[in-house]
Amino acid sequence: MVRSEFGSVNLGSLHEPVFRGNELDYTRQCVESGFVSSVGEFVNRFEDDLSKRYEGRCIVATNSGTAALHLSLLAAGVVPGDEVILPAATFVATANAVRMCGAEPHFVDINLSTLAVDPESLRKHLAQVCVDSSGTLTNRNTRRRISALIIVHLFGHGAPMKEILEAAGGFGLPIIEDAAEAVGSNSGGRPVGVSSPLAALSFNGNKIITTGGGGAVVVEEPETASLIKHLSTTAKLPHQWEYVHDLVGYNYRLPNINAALGCAQVEQLDHFVKQKRTLIDRYEKALRELDEVQMIREPADGESNYWLQTMMISEGHEISKILEALYESGIGARPLWKPLHQLPMYSACQRSELPNVESVAKRLINLPSGVGVLG
Amino acid sequence: MVRSEFGSVNLGSLHEPVFRGNELDYTRQCVESGFVSSVGEFVNRFEDDLSKRYEGRCIVATNSGTAALHLSLLAAGVVPGDEVILPAATFVATANAVRMCGAEPHFVDINLSTLAVDPESLRKHLAQVCVDSSGTLTNRNTRRRISALIIVHLFGHGAPMKEILEAAGGFGLPIIEDAAEAVGSNSGGRPVGVSSPLAALSFNGNKIITTGGGGAVVVEEPETASLIKHLSTTAKLPHQWEYVHDLVGYNYRLPNINAALGCAQVEQLDHFVKQKRTLIDRYEKALRELDEVQMIREPADGESNYWLQTMMISEGHEISKILEALYESGIGARPLWKPLHQLPMYSACQRSELPNVESVAKRLINLPSGVGVLG
Repeated sequence: MVRSEFGSVNLGSLHEPVFRGNELDYTRQCVESGFVSSVGEFVNRFEDDLSKRYEGRCIVATNSGTAALHLSLLAAGVVPGDEVILPAATFVATANAVRMCGAEPHFVDINLSTLAVDPESLRKHLAQVCVDSSGTLTNRNTRRRISALIIVHLFGHGAPMKEILEAAGGFGLPIIEDAAEAVGSNSGGRPVGVSSPLAALSFNGNKIITTGGGGAVVVEEPETASLIKHLSTTAKLPHQWEYVHDLVGYNYRLPNINAALGCAQVEQLDHFVKQKRTLIDRYEKALRELDEVQMIREPADGESNYWLQTMMISEGHEISKILEALYESGIGARPLWKPLHQLPMYSACQRSELPNVESVAKRLINLPSGVGVLG
Repeated sequence: MVRSEFGSVNLGSLHEPVFRGNELDYTRQCVESGFVSSVGEFVNRFEDDLSKRYEGRCIVATNSGTAALHLSLLAAGVVPGDEVILPAATFVATANAVRMCGAEPHFVDINLSTLAVDPESLRKHLAQVCVDSSGTLTNRNTRRRISALIIVHLFGHGAPMKEILEAAGGFGLPIIEDAAEAVGSNSGGRPVGVSSPLAALSFNGNKIITTGGGGAVVVEEPETASLIKHLSTTAKLPHQWEYVHDLVGYNYRLPNINAALGCAQVEQLDHFVKQKRTLIDRYEKALRELDEVQMIREPADGESNYWLQTMMISEGHEISKILEALYESGIGARPLWKPLHQLPMYSACQRSELPNVESVAKRLINLPSGVGVLG
């Protein structure tokens, strides 16, 4: 515990979950029902609860956010040997999901104020690298098909989807939203994740709401949702007793016991968002007098869940020293994830120039952001 | 509920879990601790509890049995373009895990009495199809490297590992045990799954003990176990604050809330095995007078957990009619899974002759096998 102007609160971790609702009650009901696995009342209810928050879209609950992203890519038609475009500033799972399809990540730059893919540099890069080869969008350097574009809503802030869709639209690329961090965020009055046919959510333990481990795909077309659910449940065809499977399927279904937690958590989501919006104001106030520090704020047309609360340090400072000092004070602050093109398994991937990703990686610090920070 | 000579018991499902131990207590403790995700007391304890049952081997808990098998194959060195040998009589996930590595399944036949890979026909098939190409075991037809052999302990009965190891030994193939169904079984006085460096377990809802969804890898070498755990936790390198990952990793860690269930279940495992061994005796007695029916019994040198309790019907009978009659009586009986080479996504795979798999698929019926069948 750290004494702070917030009182005596837990600043020791970046993002801890908070269980102050029906978590105990629902997990007890789940165990007592005997249905803890891939079938049960809570997993259906969790999907329904989420659907209501996502404009009635179909929801398929999965056992991780990575699984949700993997299934989204498969549903978008990504096949081995393809390339998928994504920002270099995101958690590594975004790129891992691409490799899980047998495809190659291809990195693009972000915008310094939205932290999402920058529409203008995306347009320029696509124009430079893409060639239409008999109706197939192809990377002129690698001759691989470019089959999808992943947009990440970093730290919970809705990306400028209108501008991104305009920039990418002419290239006919299917877009997948990685909304893992943005559960509870809005953009232009709509939930973040409904600007494209497919979006992936995460309910990992470090997210605003958690199922222990888990995720979900938000799907526009019911037929696509059926395919995704089918793929997540080992692609078994319905039959009273026979076990026939018609595709390579996955064991990705969210277990009912995890969904029971999720049902309790989603009831508290609006409250959590409110708390985290209070927290960012507190940070802003507390750090106001430091000229070198600027808090990242939500876009003008959106309401962020402020999943991670981020300060950007002016150029020329050594954030490793700041991180070390924070660490030694017992404060769970973290930098941006190492940019993906700087990781050994992705260092040979195709990419645009990445000046903004590289700048942000040297200047950004995420502060303890859980609801529990407020006590 | 069905009236039977067992009394009024639930024969309506093939295998339901039973929660009569500390499940409620441990899941409550887990939620109250705030640690429900990839780190926590229960996931460590579950691994320790399993380790004690597997001769002190290292255990890495995962969020599904398929994940455990996928990581085992990766640890054994399976890479895209390889072939992996496995029996055609197994749940589809065994082959799916091979495809998840970008490799191709290659099917072999089983023995009619053990239901596991038949050592003699394996030896013959390997001799016929394999060629040593500059030190690499290669399929002479496809020119692909054959990089592993998966042995499945079907329905919980330990496969004859000594004979299989002798048959495969000369070919230098790494062996992985798919012990998903055999948790609690012994063979030659040792737990099933320790005859090879790697074995995969499952704790899906239909298994003898469950974590909702889950699995584990049983690993002989500590270094290999470290690699598998690393791969299961997004391959993040340890650091106080930095996020650096050095391999394509997976989000496969068993959440603590699922492990809490697992800790309670593993405490009851010996009792469950005993109950299921009673059940097979009851079935045997009940069906004794039917000449056309023979119950599958454990191998002479093993003690099976009798995960699924299986009757084999003499040739010439139509099991679909029997299955339909059982279904209409509300009894949750099931045939063997459709043999893998008969599924569309695996029909073009390499294979040996498969007379025994094809025979068994027409003659085998699994009866309701859960501990709850005894009331």
